[in-house]
Amino acid sequence: MSLRHFLTTQDYSRAEIDALLEQAAAFKRSPRGQQLAGKSVALLFFNPSMRTRTSFELGAFHLGGHAIVLSPGKDAWPIEFRPGVVMDGEAEEHIAEVARVLSRYVDLIAVRAFPKFRDWSVDREDAVIKAFAQHATVPVINMETITHPCQELAHALALKERFGDLAGRKYVLTWTYHPKPLNTAVANSALLIATKLGMDVTLLCPTPDYVLDERYMDYGEHNARENGGSLTISHNLEEAYRGADVVYAKSWGALPFFGRWEDEKPIRDAHKHFIVDEAKMALTNNGVFSHCLPLRRNIKATDAVMDSPACIAIDEAENRLHVQKAVMASLISQR
Amino acid sequence: MSLRHFLTTQDYSRAEIDALLEQAAAFKRSPRGQQLAGKSVALLFFNPSMRTRTSFELGAFHLGGHAIVLSPGKDAWPIEFRPGVVMDGEAEEHIAEVARVLSRYVDLIAVRAFPKFRDWSVDREDAVIKAFAQHATVPVINMETITHPCQELAHALALKERFGDLAGRKYVLTWTYHPKPLNTAVANSALLIATKLGMDVTLLCPTPDYVLDERYMDYGEHNARENGGSLTISHNLEEAYRGADVVYAKSWGALPFFGRWEDEKPIRDAHKHFIVDEAKMALTNNGVFSHCLPLRRNIKATDAVMDSPACIAIDEAENRLHVQKAVMASLISQR
Amino acid sequence: MSLRHFLTTQDYSRAEIDALLEQAAAFKRSPRGQQLAGKSVALLFFNPSMRTRTSFELGAFHLGGHAIVLSPGKDAWPIEFRPGVVMDGEAEEHIAEVARVLSRYVDLIAVRAFPKFRDWSVDREDAVIKAFAQHATVPVINMETITHPCQELAHALALKERFGDLAGRKYVLTWTYHPKPLNTAVANSALLIATKLGMDVTLLCPTPDYVLDERYMDYGEHNARENGGSLTISHNLEEAYRGADVVYAKSWGALPFFGRWEDEKPIRDAHKHFIVDEAKMALTNNGVFSHCLPLRRNIKATDAVMDSPACIAIDEAENRLHVQKAVMASLISQR
Repeated sequence: MSLRHFLTTQDYSRAEIDALLEQAAAFKRSPRGQQLAGKSVALLFFNPSMRTRTSFELGAFHLGGHAIVLSPGKDAWPIEFRPGVVMDGEAEEHIAEVARVLSRYVDLIAVRAFPKFRDWSVDREDAVIKAFAQHATVPVINMETITHPCQELAHALALKERFGDLAGRKYVLTWTYHPKPLNTAVANSALLIATKLGMDVTLLCPTPDYVLDERYMDYGEHNARENGGSLTISHNLEEAYRGADVVYAKSWGALPFFGRWEDEKPIRDAHKHFIVDEAKMALTNNGVFSHCLPLRRNIKATDAVMDSPACIAIDEAENRLHVQKAVMASLISQR
Repeated sequence: MSLRHFLTTQDYSRAEIDALLEQAAAFKRSPRGQQLAGKSVALLFFNPSMRTRTSFELGAFHLGGHAIVLSPGKDAWPIEFRPGVVMDGEAEEHIAEVARVLSRYVDLIAVRAFPKFRDWSVDREDAVIKAFAQHATVPVINMETITHPCQELAHALALKERFGDLAGRKYVLTWTYHPKPLNTAVANSALLIATKLGMDVTLLCPTPDYVLDERYMDYGEHNARENGGSLTISHNLEEAYRGADVVYAKSWGALPFFGRWEDEKPIRDAHKHFIVDEAKMALTNNGVFSHCLPLRRNIKATDAVMDSPACIAIDEAENRLHVQKAVMASLISQR
Repeated sequence: MSLRHFLTTQDYSRAEIDALLEQAAAFKRSPRGQQLAGKSVALLFFNPSMRTRTSFELGAFHLGGHAIVLSPGKDAWPIEFRPGVVMDGEAEEHIAEVARVLSRYVDLIAVRAFPKFRDWSVDREDAVIKAFAQHATVPVINMETITHPCQELAHALALKERFGDLAGRKYVLTWTYHPKPLNTAVANSALLIATKLGMDVTLLCPTPDYVLDERYMDYGEHNARENGGSLTISHNLEEAYRGADVVYAKSWGALPFFGRWEDEKPIRDAHKHFIVDEAKMALTNNGVFSHCLPLRRNIKATDAVMDSPACIAIDEAENRLHVQKAVMASLISQR
């Protein structure tokens, strides 16, 4: 089957990523087009969203298309994803029908489906979006599952806008405190894209328990080798920040405690000082700061950092619109 | 009042139904148009939906129009439908105002309002959509109440695509098990359209308790007489399936037990073998299988049936888009 | 900062209001345009809506634009509005980011945010929409907070359609009973616009406790002086109604009982006779009746009044569409 999806940037070559970013930059300069004229995209939100929904809906409109926003389990019924099941539970419909019917209606299907946060060995299989990709007969786009490739592109574009070529830049992905154990998707994604772009990447986190899933660590090392960068783990705030060109912050739950979050809470609570503040930013090479948003101010980063010229989080958020238009236009053009 | 609504196919002549199906087939070949250019349709969902909402919203877009999706009681307030009431309960607004104001905003009003499942003598009056039709000054479309005329047209189109002329085909509407007592709307509708198209229709159900409301049985017999077909009740699986050209499955609650569903449960539970499977389909005249969806796999029909070439449920679902565009275009053109 | 918002009609001169009403009347005669071609508006509903959402969404469509409907706290996360806070509560994002990111995506931001009904000294600060206006870099529109300026314009247009020039008309804003203590927004707004249009305004309410916030009473007196009208308080039904040209009804909670609604309940309950009925309307100068809707029939006004030719509430509701298009077109044109 030759149908191309946008599930992870790992399925895309460096040249393909660069082409998407160039198209996104072109859309940023000139927002309207007819690339989706008369076309439609279904946006399936198994988890809520504001930026993702707004930017996809608007992106479709800018290119002459139309987005349909669906929230299965809220304004539609729950869906069964396992094959061969006797469907006597809550689910009223099987993904086989959902994906095939939607494929008859729309030209693209975008899916947001977070982990269930009970068993990482289950969640890491990314079953929901894979089932859509398996059964759909139109391209499927990842709007955040266990990675967040649209955020990766938006982040990459914001960095290129600041730095031009990114090869050899020191990039720090820092864990930060958050009252809840969050999804690792953006952290996984930051590793993938930063190594793909040839940066020297430091994963800064409180303890080895916060290192990311080996799949993404392996991809990161592979990408670093291929693109002339590096991937290092650090638990030392000062070492990590010193000389950094980019500080990207994200909170996430430690995988060894997955589903036993009460046990992880004391560790998280003991590392509130991982907050991104002016003192830490002063150690960098006049570095930029970014975050995928939403961000709790004065928990993950201080007001001073957020409101400083070094903060490019708003640019990154804006870029979601432009990169997603590039992704939709690219997927549509193959058909 | 000369305003034409689309509340039930019984209000439409055979020639009018055929014209709608021809227009739908034309839209299937050539999806875009300007029939709704600058026009709008309000989609009121008193009950949730995925296919209906997607297909109507997309249909409006394809024809240059715009759909507004409203969910009274969820993202709007509850509505009073009874005339003359002192409104001191939950409802904040009367249908008289809702329908008249909406009629000032939009060009079409589509309504989904399922039975309340407490008292069939109340539910069978179809008060909600009738109140809209009474107070609205624009055409009203039934998106499923106690019948589902849009599904009828989609079903009819899928059958015509397979068979061409349908006169004299053996059509079986079979009850199937479902863990909940469902709406009879699609079953009522299947009777109406199958008899209108001149087929020899068998209503297959576990016991006489599952025979449909006499209004629809009477319409079915009337239609059969007018169009050269027949309507028969059967409780014998083998007789019903043998030689069938079409098997259409649906679960529904038995009307004599309406509102006392616990009493009906043992009867339903005793008829799980009504599931549509390969052995039953082997009795047919190489017949096709369909269902309105959503369908619980391995409860109503087996995976083998659903995944067989005989299954036209996905085609039927797709046709919702095309027939609804035909209905909207037809209703708009009268104005 | 020269960015113009539409937060309250008090920020607009009489000439500017007249110009908006003329543009609205032009849109009523000729609904389509390209004033928002390729543009977008975010509609943020902190409180639900039917008319407001439909009329704004449709208005954007009519003018070539697109509305994005967002419900923070429902299909998006809760938002923090206070500056400098350590965000360790429910809110996942600060208004600073929400407003700035939305401003990158859309061309207009419209906000509905009702009072919290606990402490009027807090609610009267109108913090939510002011925070949007502060942080957004695109124009912000009030879709009802503690005033409802879009309703004002719709109301004014409906009155002008009946009367032409409104100067010197007797205008009665009458409190009516409602089982719940409602927002004062429409009452405040009625005072503002009726005095701005030079009418002789009577605020009719059961007791001095139901007089509106002094800010709006002061604005009303100021407007009356500027535009040649008057503002009077009355607790006498017959005096107020006698000779009235316009009766505008609204229920609201008494500010001295704000947040202690159980204490107010007996007073409200004792004034159910404030219902607008035919006997009261017979005292008027063949006056018109209106209401912002939703209206509980036979609680706020009788069926006879609602269904009489004197009732212009449906016209006023329709006019929401036209005036909001005028507001959006005006705000966009400044950019």
